[in-house]
Amino acid sequence: MAITVVGSIAYDAVKTPFGERERMLGGAAVHFALAASFFEEVLVVGPVGEDFGEPELDVMRRRGVDVSDIERVAGGKTFFWRGEYGWDLNSRETLDTQLGVFEGFQPKLSERSRASDVLFLANIVPDLQIEVREQLPHARFVALDSMNLWIDIAKDQLMRAIESVDCLILNDAELRQLTDKPNLISAAREILDWGASAASGSQADTNAGDSAADSDTPARRGPSVIVAKQGEYGAALITNESFFALPAYPLESVIDPTGAGDTFAGGFVGYIAAHPEEQLSDELLRRAMAHGTALASFNVEEFGTERIERLTGEEIAARVEELREFTQFSGAPLKLRS
Amino acid sequence: MAITVVGSIAYDAVKTPFGERERMLGGAAVHFALAASFFEEVLVVGPVGEDFGEPELDVMRRRGVDVSDIERVAGGKTFFWRGEYGWDLNSRETLDTQLGVFEGFQPKLSERSRASDVLFLANIVPDLQIEVREQLPHARFVALDSMNLWIDIAKDQLMRAIESVDCLILNDAELRQLTDKPNLISAAREILDWGASAASGSQADTNAGDSAADSDTPARRGPSVIVAKQGEYGAALITNESFFALPAYPLESVIDPTGAGDTFAGGFVGYIAAHPEEQLSDELLRRAMAHGTALASFNVEEFGTERIERLTGEEIAARVEELREFTQFSGAPLKLRS
Repeated sequence: MAITVVGSIAYDAVKTPFGERERMLGGAAVHFALAASFFEEVLVVGPVGEDFGEPELDVMRRRGVDVSDIERVAGGKTFFWRGEYGWDLNSRETLDTQLGVFEGFQPKLSERSRASDVLFLANIVPDLQIEVREQLPHARFVALDSMNLWIDIAKDQLMRAIESVDCLILNDAELRQLTDKPNLISAAREILDWGASAASGSQADTNAGDSAADSDTPARRGPSVIVAKQGEYGAALITNESFFALPAYPLESVIDPTGAGDTFAGGFVGYIAAHPEEQLSDELLRRAMAHGTALASFNVEEFGTERIERLTGEEIAARVEELREFTQFSGAPLKLRS
Repeated sequence: MAITVVGSIAYDAVKTPFGERERMLGGAAVHFALAASFFEEVLVVGPVGEDFGEPELDVMRRRGVDVSDIERVAGGKTFFWRGEYGWDLNSRETLDTQLGVFEGFQPKLSERSRASDVLFLANIVPDLQIEVREQLPHARFVALDSMNLWIDIAKDQLMRAIESVDCLILNDAELRQLTDKPNLISAAREILDWGASAASGSQADTNAGDSAADSDTPARRGPSVIVAKQGEYGAALITNESFFALPAYPLESVIDPTGAGDTFAGGFVGYIAAHPEEQLSDELLRRAMAHGTALASFNVEEFGTERIERLTGEEIAARVEELREFTQFSGAPLKLRS
C-alpha cells in the first residue's frame, strides 16, 4: 500500500575525508523515498525553491516516486545544508543551514497523499508532523523521526507528535535525551509506557473496546515500536514483547554517511508497507530492520543518492541474506563449572 | 585445558551515577579469571602488595581459580585505580592510578602456569606481554588485550606483542588508532594482513611447511582473529573468512561497566579453552563471542565482581539462549521493485 512521506527535499554540500560534493540532491524525504520505492509506491510531500532542477525530480521519478505533491515555491530557495565529517565519520559539523522555502512551509496534501495507508514523518518541526498526521487519521502504520534540536526547543510539541504515531525512529542518544534516562532500554520502555498509559486512559474515558487499537483517538495511542539508530553499530528494535538488534552491514569503505538514517527508515517502513496482509508482528518488524539496514549500507558507499540511484532489488536481497549469515550462531549447550 | 592469564590485580574505587565503592576487588586478570573459571581451570599471574587481603584471594579460590602464581611483594602496595563515569556510562574519567607493585613487575611463571594450553595477555606494558608469551611458546591459543596508552607511548613493542598472538581483543576505536584506518573493517583487515605477510615471509625464509601453523617461529605468526569490543553496542569478530557481530545483552539497568571488557574476554577465551578438540572454526568463535557477551552483561549489573561472584552456569546458558533469540530473523524473500 502506498506510502506518504513528508520532510525535507534539499541540496547538500558535503565534505568527508574521502571527497566532497558542492551541491547534490539530499534531504530526509528524498533519501527515504528512494529507499522505500523498492517496496511500494511513495508520494513525497515537501517544498522546493525555484532553483530546484528537473534532473533531481527525475532521480525520484525514475524510481517510480510520485513527486506531484512536491510544491515549487515561487521566488523561493530550496533547503540547503552544508556539513563536514571527521576522519572516522563518527563526528560531523554543520557549517551552514539555509531553511529557504521550509520557512513558513504549510504541508498541502493531495487526496492521493492523504489516501496512503502508511505515513512517514521525517525530521521536521513537530507541529508540522502533527498537522500532517491529522490529515491521515486512518493510516495503518505511522512512523516518525526527529532530532535533538526539537528535543531542545520544542519538546512538548515533539511529545505530542510522538504520541500520535505507531513507531518512533531516533538515534539512541536522542532516545536517552528525550526521556532523561541514561540507558537505551529504560528510555525505550518509558516511551512504550506513554502509549500504554494513554491507551488505558482512553479506554477508561470511553469504556469501549479491549485494546487501544479499537480506540477512535489514535492521537493518544503512543508508539508501540521503538527503533534506535546506532550509526556504525546498526540499529535496535524495542517493543513491549521483544528486543532485536542488528549490526550495520560491515563495509571496508564508507564514503558519506549523509542520509543513512532516512535510507534505513525507507527500507524499514517500505518493507512494512509492502506487507499489508501481515500483522505488525515481531517477525515482520525484524525482517523490516534487515531491509532497512541493507539499504542504509548501500547509501553510505557513495555520496548522496549516487549509489541508491543504480541499486537493484537483487543487490538488496543479497545483502539481507549476508546480514543473516553475519549474525547467526549455534546453541551447543555446554556444562559450565559452577 | 588450563588457561594462564597475566595482568593487573587491583583495588578499584569507582563512582557511577548509581552508587560508589571506595575499595573493591578489581583488575583485568581478576575479571578475566572469574569469567573464564566457568569454563576451565585458570591460573593467575600478577603481583599484589602487602595490603592485599585473603578475602579477595578467596573470591578467586571459591571459583576454583589457582592463585598460587599471584606474587605478594613485601612492602609493596597493590595496584589502585580510581575512576568516575558520566551519566550514561559512556564516558569515564580516571582520577587516580597508582601502579604500586606493578612498577618493576617481572612476571615469574611457575611450571604449571607455563604448561597451560591457552594464554590471555591482559592489558599491561607490551614488553611484559612479549616476555610472558615467550614462556608459553607452544600454547594452542593466545589472546591479547591492550589500550590506547600503549599505542601512544609504546607502539612498536605493542606491534611486536600483537604479532606473537592468535587473537587481538581491542576496543574498536583502538583498532582504528592502531592502524590509522578510519573504519573498523579496514583496520581489522590490515592487522590480519600483518599475520599473512609475516607468515609468507617466514615461509620464504625457512622454505618449510605449507602454512604458518607449521612454522617454528610463532612469534611472527600474527593474529588470525580480531575481536572489536564496542561497549554498549556489543562486539564484532573479524577473521579472514568471516564477519560476525553480536549486540550487548540489553539491560534496563547498568550499574558499573568496570571490567566488562575483561569479563567478556574471560568468557570468550574460556569457551575456546573448553573446546580443545575443536578446530578454531568460525562456528566455535561465534559461540565463544556469545558466552563472552553473556558474561559481560552480568558483570555490569553490579559493582566490581559482586554479580559474577554469585553467578551460576545455568544463568549464563540462559542468557546465551536469549542472545540467540534477540538476533534471529527469517529470510522471507520479497520481490523488490527495481
